Amino acid sequence: MDVTVRAATRDDVPAIVRLLADDALGAQRELIEDPVAPIYLRAFDDIAAQPGNDLLVAVFEDAVIGCVQLTIIAGLSRRGVRRAQIEGVRVSSNHRGEKVGEQLVLEAIARARAAGCGLVQLTSDVSRLDARRFYEKLGFKATHIGMKLPLAKEP
Amino acid sequence: MDVTVRAATRDDVPAIVRLLADDALGAQRELIEDPVAPIYLRAFDDIAAQPGNDLLVAVFEDAVIGCVQLTIIAGLSRRGVRRAQIEGVRVSSNHRGEKVGEQLVLEAIARARAAGCGLVQLTSDVSRLDARRFYEKLGFKATHIGMKLPLAKEP
Repeated sequence: MDVTVRAATRDDVPAIVRLLADDALGAQRELIEDPVAPIYLRAFDDIAAQPGNDLLVAVFEDAVIGCVQLTIIAGLSRRGVRRAQIEGVRVSSNHRGEKVGEQLVLEAIARARAAGCGLVQLTSDVSRLDARRFYEKLGFKATHIGMKLPLAKEP
Repeated sequence: MDVTVRAATRDDVPAIVRLLADDALGAQRELIEDPVAPIYLRAFDDIAAQPGNDLLVAVFEDAVIGCVQLTIIAGLSRRGVRRAQIEGVRVSSNHRGEKVGEQLVLEAIARARAAGCGLVQLTSDVSRLDARRFYEKLGFKATHIGMKLPLAKEP
């Protein structure tokens, strides 16, 4: 299967949002409208304006079938290691089990290494048992708990 | 106790590194040298060059007694929510139990809100049982696993 991974463009946003929603958790969280909801285009512009924050897409026969977000974060701890953070890994339900996710994550790791990172990190919802096994096969270790605090809008 | 929280400067780096090492896990990870190891100053400069990546310190009687790193990350998932990520929360062993950590994290949350974030997130080593309770009291929920992959240096 001839899948290429490349940087996402603004034109990919509708396809990426469909991927984010093509998932048990994402289906409840995302907003599917046609044309794509403006909040996603604004978020894409915010990402594009942030150096070291990149969206990648997997493309097969001109269709976007997977995505990943990679963010490079400088920090002092662990001897000043630069971290790469992976978010929002998704593969179209039509193409699961075809190693597309693996290709995306390996490309993200290669880009992290090229950017001088010494650590790659991610969090995964505890309900995603397959995801944990997938990342463990790629060498990740579940050493941490991931905690989230939603912030309510100010009244 | 009159503790103020402010943005860290390059002159704070030696004190922050001592804080990072003043901890069961950090003691094994960090490099304590006098003067401070240049890798930390380079990392500070990398942080300072990244918009939305901030180090804060808690100061009591002119001494740095706590620190936190706050990174704002734009993203598409969860309806394009902007996230704030907290890393490297440390309080001097001489000042634990005095609500300094709470003040640091609450200030980080306030800055996250001011920056338009809808979510604050962090990971905590599974061995830090007190940390989990601390963050739960502040409203965080341990919904995720946190996975890490160290990258070996290229030969």
